[in-house]
Amino acid sequence: MSEAVDELEGLLAAPPQLTRRPVVQALEERLYRPVRVLDHGFVRVVDYSGDDGAVVQAARVSYGGGTRSVSSDRGLIRYLMRHRHTTPFEMCELKLHVKLPIFVARQWIRHRTASVNEISGRYSVLDREFYLPPAALIATQASSNRQGRGASLDADEAGEVLRLLREDAMRSFGTYQALLNDDGSGEAADPTKPMVARELARINLGLSTYTQWYWKTDLHNLLHFLALRLDRHAQVEIRRYAQVIADVVAAWVPHTWEAFLDYRMGAHTFSREELALIRGALRGQDLEEGMERSGLSGRERAELLSVLGLR
Amino acid sequence: MSEAVDELEGLLAAPPQLTRRPVVQALEERLYRPVRVLDHGFVRVVDYSGDDGAVVQAARVSYGGGTRSVSSDRGLIRYLMRHRHTTPFEMCELKLHVKLPIFVARQWIRHRTASVNEISGRYSVLDREFYLPPAALIATQASSNRQGRGASLDADEAGEVLRLLREDAMRSFGTYQALLNDDGSGEAADPTKPMVARELARINLGLSTYTQWYWKTDLHNLLHFLALRLDRHAQVEIRRYAQVIADVVAAWVPHTWEAFLDYRMGAHTFSREELALIRGALRGQDLEEGMERSGLSGRERAELLSVLGLR
Amino acid sequence: MSEAVDELEGLLAAPPQLTRRPVVQALEERLYRPVRVLDHGFVRVVDYSGDDGAVVQAARVSYGGGTRSVSSDRGLIRYLMRHRHTTPFEMCELKLHVKLPIFVARQWIRHRTASVNEISGRYSVLDREFYLPPAALIATQASSNRQGRGASLDADEAGEVLRLLREDAMRSFGTYQALLNDDGSGEAADPTKPMVARELARINLGLSTYTQWYWKTDLHNLLHFLALRLDRHAQVEIRRYAQVIADVVAAWVPHTWEAFLDYRMGAHTFSREELALIRGALRGQDLEEGMERSGLSGRERAELLSVLGLR
Amino acid sequence: MSEAVDELEGLLAAPPQLTRRPVVQALEERLYRPVRVLDHGFVRVVDYSGDDGAVVQAARVSYGGGTRSVSSDRGLIRYLMRHRHTTPFEMCELKLHVKLPIFVARQWIRHRTASVNEISGRYSVLDREFYLPPAALIATQASSNRQGRGASLDADEAGEVLRLLREDAMRSFGTYQALLNDDGSGEAADPTKPMVARELARINLGLSTYTQWYWKTDLHNLLHFLALRLDRHAQVEIRRYAQVIADVVAAWVPHTWEAFLDYRMGAHTFSREELALIRGALRGQDLEEGMERSGLSGRERAELLSVLGLR
Repeated sequence: MSEAVDELEGLLAAPPQLTRRPVVQALEERLYRPVRVLDHGFVRVVDYSGDDGAVVQAARVSYGGGTRSVSSDRGLIRYLMRHRHTTPFEMCELKLHVKLPIFVARQWIRHRTASVNEISGRYSVLDREFYLPPAALIATQASSNRQGRGASLDADEAGEVLRLLREDAMRSFGTYQALLNDDGSGEAADPTKPMVARELARINLGLSTYTQWYWKTDLHNLLHFLALRLDRHAQVEIRRYAQVIADVVAAWVPHTWEAFLDYRMGAHTFSREELALIRGALRGQDLEEGMERSGLSGRERAELLSVLGLR
Repeated sequence: MSEAVDELEGLLAAPPQLTRRPVVQALEERLYRPVRVLDHGFVRVVDYSGDDGAVVQAARVSYGGGTRSVSSDRGLIRYLMRHRHTTPFEMCELKLHVKLPIFVARQWIRHRTASVNEISGRYSVLDREFYLPPAALIATQASSNRQGRGASLDADEAGEVLRLLREDAMRSFGTYQALLNDDGSGEAADPTKPMVARELARINLGLSTYTQWYWKTDLHNLLHFLALRLDRHAQVEIRRYAQVIADVVAAWVPHTWEAFLDYRMGAHTFSREELALIRGALRGQDLEEGMERSGLSGRERAELLSVLGLR
Repeated sequence: MSEAVDELEGLLAAPPQLTRRPVVQALEERLYRPVRVLDHGFVRVVDYSGDDGAVVQAARVSYGGGTRSVSSDRGLIRYLMRHRHTTPFEMCELKLHVKLPIFVARQWIRHRTASVNEISGRYSVLDREFYLPPAALIATQASSNRQGRGASLDADEAGEVLRLLREDAMRSFGTYQALLNDDGSGEAADPTKPMVARELARINLGLSTYTQWYWKTDLHNLLHFLALRLDRHAQVEIRRYAQVIADVVAAWVPHTWEAFLDYRMGAHTFSREELALIRGALRGQDLEEGMERSGLSGRERAELLSVLGLR
Repeated sequence: MSEAVDELEGLLAAPPQLTRRPVVQALEERLYRPVRVLDHGFVRVVDYSGDDGAVVQAARVSYGGGTRSVSSDRGLIRYLMRHRHTTPFEMCELKLHVKLPIFVARQWIRHRTASVNEISGRYSVLDREFYLPPAALIATQASSNRQGRGASLDADEAGEVLRLLREDAMRSFGTYQALLNDDGSGEAADPTKPMVARELARINLGLSTYTQWYWKTDLHNLLHFLALRLDRHAQVEIRRYAQVIADVVAAWVPHTWEAFLDYRMGAHTFSREELALIRGALRGQDLEEGMERSGLSGRERAELLSVLGLR
């Protein structure tokens, strides 16, 4: 990866040039600069195109006269977000260079509407870097839901988990390097042993091994990614990446970001039955009684009370 | 559409700004400037991101050490194109503002991997503009293939066709405007008559009516679009748009464009059987005899001879 | 189109065959049978794969042990819909043969995640069929929103609109046929006149002309299509198609359909600020007062009261 | 995974039902039956829709009269494949249940136009199964290309590689199970130790660990997958899966498969310059001399001679 990295550092060192395209100063300052995530990962902005104005511009083509009544760019963007008019948000693009553990990459890649160039373990020798969670993230299986983490372990227990994870990873990398038997210049380090094919040597590396990719997507799909990956049900490691990207988006398209917080992240969808219960409660009916007569499951009732701030 | 247009003219008038992103001077000069296509249409570049270097940069991430042996950017781009390593070409984006007849738009929209914001006849009153072909493009149905045009009509016949097309289009627009009954300010031009809904009034407008859209896609999908729409089997009207876009791409990513011409547009794919015949012919076997014994259809044989420059 | 039609009638006439795939009796009865939509259009099911059970089956692969606690298929489907776990719904497919006016097709085609084969006016001569709205759908431009229809016209006015639409469409078809000059067998009807290319002759046909296509998509994308096209903001003509497809889906995957009605169509999303107002109101605060202090626009306030059944 | 498996066995045991949809007997016999791939993997057909006839049916809609001259289904399918008319092939779908090592899954998932439900290591405890290559596939790094394998190791060397891979994998699984500390019923096996969260415990599992998914795609995208993954440059492990799927496709849509072999797998694309050289050679010019004057790289020249059967 050193070449790609050098190339970006070269771009960072080069003098800026004039353009007639929209320029977002807050992103220019972040361009090519890695922001650390987890123990060895990073996110850095490699390119962007468009800004809040580009969203507005595209919307005004589509809705023409219909957008005249919405005076400000901010107002129009809020209108689009509120009514799920998503296509104008596709008119902006963000390209990131990300270094991330493979188990995070496997969750991330499920977002299909994106372009990806990932370092290939068939072509390249992977760096000896793997993810070890900080003690605070070493936790028991959650009992309340089937996928997440519960309470953190105590220091001794966490230390033991870390020791096991580190030893396994070290050992796997040791085997990897022994199989490759590469002295760094492409010659055998130990001439009495074979140099095993890279595509084969890597198969026992752990899912905590770091990989890298360029990942490009449009703003609409990026917001969808963030909505899912900032969610408290997302695994905490991918959430850390999402938080860094959220900061980038907030700097890049502030009106869009504000609307996203108000109409998506901070919003809540009530089902038909929940809506009927809320209407009833506002007319003075007893909500608890209503819930009991309803078809809502126990979990749905608990969540409804919680969202309504009643428990 | 006047607002969107004004906005772009505003961008054109604004002073350029500094950016650290890749800048392609040849595209900067074209930004926001419409290039005329057909009688009332145009294509103009609204935004771009990336350049030949961005393709190379992404490829070097993927193939890492594997790309070291290819010394130059041009060489690497040719290698990628030749081996159909398509993902690095997704790392560049082009956004166009296009004005085009609806029948062209209907062919264009079939390319699904793109973002589109089209003017809506439900929200906006459409301009009184429709496509009339130049006399040279008024032709008979092709007999050799089922979809194209044959010989041009003589001047009198072409004039008669034009007269019919113009009259129908004028009449449809007249009806459209009478139904809208809009004096331009949203008030009824004729207060004794209803103002029919725009979404309804438009349904009889012809397919030659001009529409407009913002269209954004990545370089890989753009090249696929061009490969299909520059082809001699594409309808000549959409081909005119493809040719203007081809000029844009040639200015934007010259190495990619050269490789595309060599490995796609100027290339030819021979089937398994054709390949066997060519091998035989190079070893001195009679090609015509070989074709007779083969399973090639009459059309395949004729095309083979033509591609090989033997007829 | 007659051939394709005949082929389907052939399939309908053929004896059923045995399969081990999931079979949905209610869809088998509808297979290949057109359901009329608008004046000349139709929708008919050409193929389907999967059922409610296929959604459950795929979810159980993904969530494994996590789905054990949800006892019934219906319960699991409701859980998936509620939590927007969308991928299991992609495991079912529906293929339709649709005949529809071009202006409807242009809205429909914007749904990109689908496969389409449309009759081509370059290859085929189009039928002399165009859409004329029933009198009840001939209406004025809506004043309350920028895209829809307002009050219906009175009978005389509507009759006049219809007369204009019919005359334009008839005239356009007359021109089309005169230009084609095709006697039906591919020979010139009038030997003294040219046979103009089909791809050219069609350019003045109106947007009300009927076209046909095969359209295939998965259940997740189909539900998204329905959510948008059943909405009261969708143009009434495409809504008619959506309603027919909704009936098909309800018969095909009844648990999914029920969950879709409860968690999507009948659900409502409240923004962060609206949510705060509802919480306040449930604790006894004055909603109107709260709204006045809020940042909600006039339209948002009116909509909030309406959704909450308070106005 | 046991439940999903059981469910399929249930489907296999159930009596077949009548359907009016196209039925492909050769696939019915394969439905739900796993075909072994690698040491613990499999591929099995879970569902399919369409057949060769469905491709033809969709093409006849699109090209209407244009397809009348092609008399047979086989002829039309060959015409479509030859001219890259790809959309009719999207009208068929195949759904597979696949068990495969994670490093294979990571290559496979790059095909974005597909639907996937993969077993989640956050929800489920993964089985203690990992891939160990047979001795014949344990090979050195290729020198001729940057990504593949060269010569096989001798028996002793291969045995040593296997030993290392097995030990690492066993150890990683041991750690995984110790961290989970799950007695199989969700209770702690060792009550003195914590039960570490599943999503965390798995991060050191190797890339050779088996995962499972449902994977559904259409025939066009499936053929594209096969073209890339049957290629000799694909890693041999994913090629094994591609070969099993190729057998399925050959049984399912025999005309399409034959056309695919003739016009894709067995075909070759020559660049503009190569085409000029072939034309020259057929007119008696010296090919070697022509190549020397050409801009072809050494590798291109060698490949050209090889494809033409001249070396």
